[in-house]
Amino acid sequence: MSSQMQALKTRLGTISDLAGASELAAWDQQTKMPPNGGKARAEMLGTLASLRHGAFTDDETGRLLEAAAAELDGADGRGGPDPDSDDVRLIEVTRRRWEKSRRVPTELEGELARASSEGQEAWVAARAASDFKSFAPYLERILKLTRRYVDCHLGHDGFQCAYDVLIDDYEPGIRTARVAELFSELKGELVPMIARLGQATPVDDTLLSAHFATEGQRTLARETVTLMGFDEQGWRMDDTVHPFAIRIAAGDVRITNRWDESYWPMSLYGAMHECGHGLYEAGVAPELRRLPTGSPESLGMHESQSRLWENMVGRGRAFCTLLAPRVGELAGGDLAGLDADQLYRAINRVKPTFIRVEADEATYGLHIILRFELEQEMVEGRLAIADLPEAWNAKFKDSFGIEVTDDADGVLQDVHWSGGMMGYFPTYALGNLIAGQLWERAQAEISGLDDQLAAGELVELREWLRRRVHRHGAKFETEELLEREGGGPISVAPFVRYLKAKLSDVYGVDLGD
Amino acid sequence: MSSQMQALKTRLGTISDLAGASELAAWDQQTKMPPNGGKARAEMLGTLASLRHGAFTDDETGRLLEAAAAELDGADGRGGPDPDSDDVRLIEVTRRRWEKSRRVPTELEGELARASSEGQEAWVAARAASDFKSFAPYLERILKLTRRYVDCHLGHDGFQCAYDVLIDDYEPGIRTARVAELFSELKGELVPMIARLGQATPVDDTLLSAHFATEGQRTLARETVTLMGFDEQGWRMDDTVHPFAIRIAAGDVRITNRWDESYWPMSLYGAMHECGHGLYEAGVAPELRRLPTGSPESLGMHESQSRLWENMVGRGRAFCTLLAPRVGELAGGDLAGLDADQLYRAINRVKPTFIRVEADEATYGLHIILRFELEQEMVEGRLAIADLPEAWNAKFKDSFGIEVTDDADGVLQDVHWSGGMMGYFPTYALGNLIAGQLWERAQAEISGLDDQLAAGELVELREWLRRRVHRHGAKFETEELLEREGGGPISVAPFVRYLKAKLSDVYGVDLGD
Repeated sequence: MSSQMQALKTRLGTISDLAGASELAAWDQQTKMPPNGGKARAEMLGTLASLRHGAFTDDETGRLLEAAAAELDGADGRGGPDPDSDDVRLIEVTRRRWEKSRRVPTELEGELARASSEGQEAWVAARAASDFKSFAPYLERILKLTRRYVDCHLGHDGFQCAYDVLIDDYEPGIRTARVAELFSELKGELVPMIARLGQATPVDDTLLSAHFATEGQRTLARETVTLMGFDEQGWRMDDTVHPFAIRIAAGDVRITNRWDESYWPMSLYGAMHECGHGLYEAGVAPELRRLPTGSPESLGMHESQSRLWENMVGRGRAFCTLLAPRVGELAGGDLAGLDADQLYRAINRVKPTFIRVEADEATYGLHIILRFELEQEMVEGRLAIADLPEAWNAKFKDSFGIEVTDDADGVLQDVHWSGGMMGYFPTYALGNLIAGQLWERAQAEISGLDDQLAAGELVELREWLRRRVHRHGAKFETEELLEREGGGPISVAPFVRYLKAKLSDVYGVDLGD
Repeated sequence: MSSQMQALKTRLGTISDLAGASELAAWDQQTKMPPNGGKARAEMLGTLASLRHGAFTDDETGRLLEAAAAELDGADGRGGPDPDSDDVRLIEVTRRRWEKSRRVPTELEGELARASSEGQEAWVAARAASDFKSFAPYLERILKLTRRYVDCHLGHDGFQCAYDVLIDDYEPGIRTARVAELFSELKGELVPMIARLGQATPVDDTLLSAHFATEGQRTLARETVTLMGFDEQGWRMDDTVHPFAIRIAAGDVRITNRWDESYWPMSLYGAMHECGHGLYEAGVAPELRRLPTGSPESLGMHESQSRLWENMVGRGRAFCTLLAPRVGELAGGDLAGLDADQLYRAINRVKPTFIRVEADEATYGLHIILRFELEQEMVEGRLAIADLPEAWNAKFKDSFGIEVTDDADGVLQDVHWSGGMMGYFPTYALGNLIAGQLWERAQAEISGLDDQLAAGELVELREWLRRRVHRHGAKFETEELLEREGGGPISVAPFVRYLKAKLSDVYGVDLGD
């Protein structure tokens, strides 16, 4: 390797190690740390983040970037270097991140971090008391700082509006207009579908709350993720309050889970979801490790992996034929002899509810679209914070046909805004769309996929995803990656086809195709 | 706080956080990390160590030190600042460490780290094959680099000889001549004592290898360390191969343990030993945290804490009356109804053996003195590496009266030399001496201590140790601390008095006093 490129990679490797140390400290905090360590851990995490930010954004990184780029341009003769090569993409991705992070003054970064930390604390109390007013001043401050953050970036990178800047942090390269177009099409499909299902005979889902002891759930979750690719040589699974997946470094992926004896699907589908995230991280090409291109940064693409495993595989008819008898064996009691068809129908029942994280596959999109619309209005100053609960409730009534009576079940339900994460929500629904698209292509390309799933043979699907998605890491932005590997840019149709087919089957109605 | 002092402390706090991140990564590596994460973890640990070293040794730290020192001198009027104040001691301790670490070229640091890493790998293989010759070239290289390291420091800090430099890294401020004087007195006491016990009726120690299931051992260890001060809010205990104690940060101390169903004292006394180390770390005054003075650096003082709890308390007659019935209950089988006197005698039996880590309290010192003598001869070039096994065996025969026939049980038994840690061994025996000294003083100052121990009331002893030792952190060097809090500099007599009294009791002989 050339000397300038090597120097750049050495520096980026150091920064990646600092990120790994932060990941480890965060994992430990949520799984192992004794409670009294909390205050000191916050200091440690702050120190690691500021060292990493400082090392990444400083002039020396820029100098190394330019030197490596010049060397690369000079080395490949007349035609120039291959624009898809790891090194060319590394320069592009790194330069874009470096420029974006240098536009934000350190003082504003600090203000945002403080406001988010205080905001989250205030939100916990406000949600517990269902008291939006006590949270409003914190959200006001976060919004003000967020607007300052937006102002740092407008006029760069082709951003057309304030929300473009925000969503770009979570889904690099995508623009508000594009998301609005996709969501409009999606909403046009979901609303009549949900209305039609509301008139169908309801599905009996009482089996989901039958008693299932934690030890048995642990066995089920462990067996299932092992089929997916979890192995003790390179993975861990631990208990936590809010499940997540994290890659500390190459060969070290960790997922977490929680257990509820009166709602057993949570642990099973939570495990499949987090393992889906973990497989993405574990599947990045070794050549990209310890580099910015080695850390997937599209949250939509990340979510597509977790949702594909959780919903398309885990809630699919084929896999249910494998799951049902095993659940019956491990749980016994009311679940003994569980029937696959019964399980399949119960875990796919559609029902409008207040809480996003408990939503089914059909109503989920509407939860996201509501937030996407409100976020834009707030950021663009068209909606005052004081009017937010009313706006939420009106939109909710309009989309779901039910009346929010309690802010804790409405505008206060999510942590994101209190933590300054505006622009994040759309990636959840984009993840569903991408999952639908990849799933359709996988079914076309892997012969006998359903038979494999019914037999618990998940290797070919995993390797297909690795080849199509995982190995590329953050080399390509989402739509470019999908053009190359997914048959075209993000598309609504495959997800809708998937949903209509499944829900027609579950409800015994004809939703069309 | 003044602005220069605050600036210094902020920088030292950052460095302390990097140390905490390294501690956490090391703890995780030995307790939780999936095996495939090993290669990347080595890179992460290397990055953290080099960032910490770089930040500590750079010019800016020196500038802040001098500015804070000048401010301190100027601020306190004619008399100058209190020489025992936290801030004055912080400047002294930090300046000394800063100057010492700046004397070593980065290139030599790297060479030493590489040689130690390769040396340890070679040692593992050599010990397994009991083949000293295959290890000799590695030790040769480590010794050569160690001499270069010594040369960086000779002429500074009042070092009189090569070994002074080495021992100072593990026991700051102590000198070879002082250690030699103490060890000579100790040896003069131990040799006749061991000889005399060799002629006494042997103690029956078969109960130590009676079967005791791991779950019961876990309960016993957990109960015992909880009496000592372990609590779930600020501590953890995990399984590992080589037990250790570590403080990640304030409020977060972790100990580790291992379990052997056919040698149960290992887990109990291992837990007490590591908890003793942990109590020292947990007991440092909050004002010293995130500062160099907040990290105890005398390994002798550290070992005195672990040994005092393990041996003086845990192997004492009073505590045995508490332990014996509980061991009997938890283990059942051959240990059911275990008698306190029988337990007390068995766990204090004296018997010359080849392996240091299995040695009893009396022979332990001789193991250390042998290594102390050989290390000096090697470092000063009076003993060639090729002649080391022969020298070891001759000295061993002389001290213990038994013949080493296998290098794995002799010169190859310890990891220290392979890891470049020459000068470390003496701290183990110094720890025993200091423990004896503190123990004698604690008995004089805490009324009814034996009754407390027999009742499992360990709080007053712990608080006494915290007041006398723990709270001071690294503010004072060992002998200064003992002058202030331990009744005088390190002394052999109290430890010998303690040992003679106990072993006279155990063997029913008169060893004098």
